[in-house]
Amino acid sequence: MKIITVSREFGSGGREVGKRLADELGLAYYDREIITAIAREMDLDEAYVERTLNESVYRSYPVTFAHTLSHMPAVNQNAPQLLARQHKIIKELAAKGPCLIVGRGADAVLEEHEPFKIFVYADMPSKIARCRQKADEKLTDKELERKIRQIDKGRSDNHDFVANYRWGDKKGYHLCLNSTGIRIKDIIAPLAAYAGLWFAGKET
Amino acid sequence: MKIITVSREFGSGGREVGKRLADELGLAYYDREIITAIAREMDLDEAYVERTLNESVYRSYPVTFAHTLSHMPAVNQNAPQLLARQHKIIKELAAKGPCLIVGRGADAVLEEHEPFKIFVYADMPSKIARCRQKADEKLTDKELERKIRQIDKGRSDNHDFVANYRWGDKKGYHLCLNSTGIRIKDIIAPLAAYAGLWFAGKET
Repeated sequence: MKIITVSREFGSGGREVGKRLADELGLAYYDREIITAIAREMDLDEAYVERTLNESVYRSYPVTFAHTLSHMPAVNQNAPQLLARQHKIIKELAAKGPCLIVGRGADAVLEEHEPFKIFVYADMPSKIARCRQKADEKLTDKELERKIRQIDKGRSDNHDFVANYRWGDKKGYHLCLNSTGIRIKDIIAPLAAYAGLWFAGKET
Repeated sequence: MKIITVSREFGSGGREVGKRLADELGLAYYDREIITAIAREMDLDEAYVERTLNESVYRSYPVTFAHTLSHMPAVNQNAPQLLARQHKIIKELAAKGPCLIVGRGADAVLEEHEPFKIFVYADMPSKIARCRQKADEKLTDKELERKIRQIDKGRSDNHDFVANYRWGDKKGYHLCLNSTGIRIKDIIAPLAAYAGLWFAGKET
């Protein structure tokens, strides 16, 4: 079954890659639906669900040990439960038919479907520029960089919580593309062709 | 100027990617010529040049320190000089015009030309299978795996000796492709299209 997952660094344009690639290949594209379904099934506020899932599953608590202040990592309350529900919903969506899912650990969760796994990344200046282009950011470059790193830490932690490879480690993906200096809409056709050939290879 | 570099794990088929892509795009392809030129310019045996360049620039020597046997890393005699000559020759070749170079640290050496940089990798079973297919290997899988890791250690050490990013770290490349389960000749057309769009983007 044709399932594509797009993992991405924040600000790399991975979401645009996913949306355009899904359109090009005629695949169902799930995004907001996943959050809405979790909120509905668990009778929780959508904004709360989204915020919790976008944060790292880990929290670190300050503790004093042998007169030394240290930080003890701990799992964030509710996050594992929300992640588990998210995985269940992703599996249900994938079972419906060919689709493309951006982020949300779908690459690891759907491994049994053997998805074509893409990872999109970029250098920091280009991620900062893309963030500014997309939103009317009031943050300084330094603050934006901190925000990007923090969001990616959440993605990384939550991915690695369930996957048997690390978020962003190329070994876990079929294609890793650096979006620095490229116009995403330009590369959709060759990307779609590449994915198509990969699926064709699986069938023979 | 259109310059493409293909870095690759041993057994991933990166050389085939490079050769076919150069043919597809009508780019000069340099491989053996580099070794021959170094040997001629330095009046050395070609086989010696090749062997030295394929080994890690580092050696580790056993030393005893405070009654403990340890290993001291040291630079391999002659290797830095050969690497420097290799870099000079690669720059001369690139100055001649559009080309594609596989391995040999060309990605780092030619950075001022802003090459399109590809990294090809694969999982271990598929690298072992590809090695067996190419050569009548008498080695066991375990021995082959050790050989693959050793060759890649040489590539990694020699790359990192001159580059400001690590060999195989996706951040240093524009596209990283996992050749596991794909037929290389199939993916050349989309790959060439992708590279072409990347170069077109640079010009605008």
